[in-house]
Amino acid sequence: MASYLVTGSSRGLGLALITRLATLPRTEVATIIATARQDNSAQLKEIENASSGRVQIVKLDVTDESSVKEAVVAVERQLQGKGLDYLVNNAGVMDWSPTGLEGMDNLNDTLNINVTAPHRVSRAFLPLLRKGEKKTVINISTTLGSVAMADAFRSMPSPAYKISKAALNMLTVQYAQQYADDGFTFLAISPGWLRTKLGSDRADLPVEIGAEKVLDIIKKATPEQNGKYVNIHVPGWETREGPNQYDGKEIPW
Amino acid sequence: MASYLVTGSSRGLGLALITRLATLPRTEVATIIATARQDNSAQLKEIENASSGRVQIVKLDVTDESSVKEAVVAVERQLQGKGLDYLVNNAGVMDWSPTGLEGMDNLNDTLNINVTAPHRVSRAFLPLLRKGEKKTVINISTTLGSVAMADAFRSMPSPAYKISKAALNMLTVQYAQQYADDGFTFLAISPGWLRTKLGSDRADLPVEIGAEKVLDIIKKATPEQNGKYVNIHVPGWETREGPNQYDGKEIPW
Repeated sequence: MASYLVTGSSRGLGLALITRLATLPRTEVATIIATARQDNSAQLKEIENASSGRVQIVKLDVTDESSVKEAVVAVERQLQGKGLDYLVNNAGVMDWSPTGLEGMDNLNDTLNINVTAPHRVSRAFLPLLRKGEKKTVINISTTLGSVAMADAFRSMPSPAYKISKAALNMLTVQYAQQYADDGFTFLAISPGWLRTKLGSDRADLPVEIGAEKVLDIIKKATPEQNGKYVNIHVPGWETREGPNQYDGKEIPW
Repeated sequence: MASYLVTGSSRGLGLALITRLATLPRTEVATIIATARQDNSAQLKEIENASSGRVQIVKLDVTDESSVKEAVVAVERQLQGKGLDYLVNNAGVMDWSPTGLEGMDNLNDTLNINVTAPHRVSRAFLPLLRKGEKKTVINISTTLGSVAMADAFRSMPSPAYKISKAALNMLTVQYAQQYADDGFTFLAISPGWLRTKLGSDRADLPVEIGAEKVLDIIKKATPEQNGKYVNIHVPGWETREGPNQYDGKEIPW
């Protein structure tokens, strides 16, 4: 009977996570809060309408402090005295800079959305998470945020994304340290390279597989994993050539 | 006959680096550009006045694009047709947040100053660095930016600093990758815990020792070290208890 909140739910991985959560039994998933900067996504609205009240769309601009505060009030009302079990910080952006660093004019914006915003949202939802059973916060990261693996991703012209996700990993560890004694679990998960607007059509996996595998990790997460940075596990993909992104194991920082 | 530019030179490690550079023989160090947001530091002015033209103060606010551009023009004029050999991105800030993440309201500003600014400055000075002999850029980092070592620094309440320096390390690697073929050397150096306004009086080492040891690394830097993240080497301090910060070796990411 868990409750979930996923940011950036209007498309991509966020939408796929909400879609999948809505297929799970009510005994397992009681409340699904889908937040988005614009609350007029037709696809999201459709899922909400078909959910008999289980899926609720809440407007939330992760870069706007007052929007985050309003969302907390709205979510608190919807949880009717219960806590929030899972917060998934999924909203994010990726730069595409064919000239590399010379064209990287968006670093501050990328850091604001991919690093400061998850901090802002996590901090604001902490009181509701404390009241939850699971006390689990997932930061959607990427193997591209691994400095140790940077050589393998040299050809991906998204420097601001890589830099911001390395920072997000450190943010995750900072939260893990500070709230470990309160029973929290903070995890940075790499969902793999998914066929979304962000990941492009050339990506490895359909977004639905990514969402399924991310939820596999989330559901099994325990405080022993607090502060870890992990790959999804996609059987058959562990042994393929190239960087290890689908083995379900810890990623080197 | 090398030329150096150090940002954030009005105090702390920056001032100590300029002070030490000014003691080295002219055959080794020909030009020393000391940049600072305010160009009215009395100590810096004194060094400039005593240097017979070798030390030049240039106003540079690393967070301001137009200030950086004006500084490039000023430095180009001072180099009189020569290139810049060493750029030291030293300007930076550290937060002190006794309540940890709950009090971390300055993450965007810290990321702007500690990550985006070194990018802005490096990018702007690339044409002058290309004309230089050494083509070396030093980003002043810290072991506190190592996610792998985060446990050891758990008690240091500077989450924004840690997050920003993890991002700076990834920025360093991105530059190292992009400009490796052009003969550049990008290095992230941890100067140790130094007795400065930033490091406090409780720190391990006098700032002069930190500056000396940082310059030891800089002077010996070769393109083989491009993209590395290293400790200073302080003999006698390698074997002390606690995290390894003075062994002159590579730091895990």
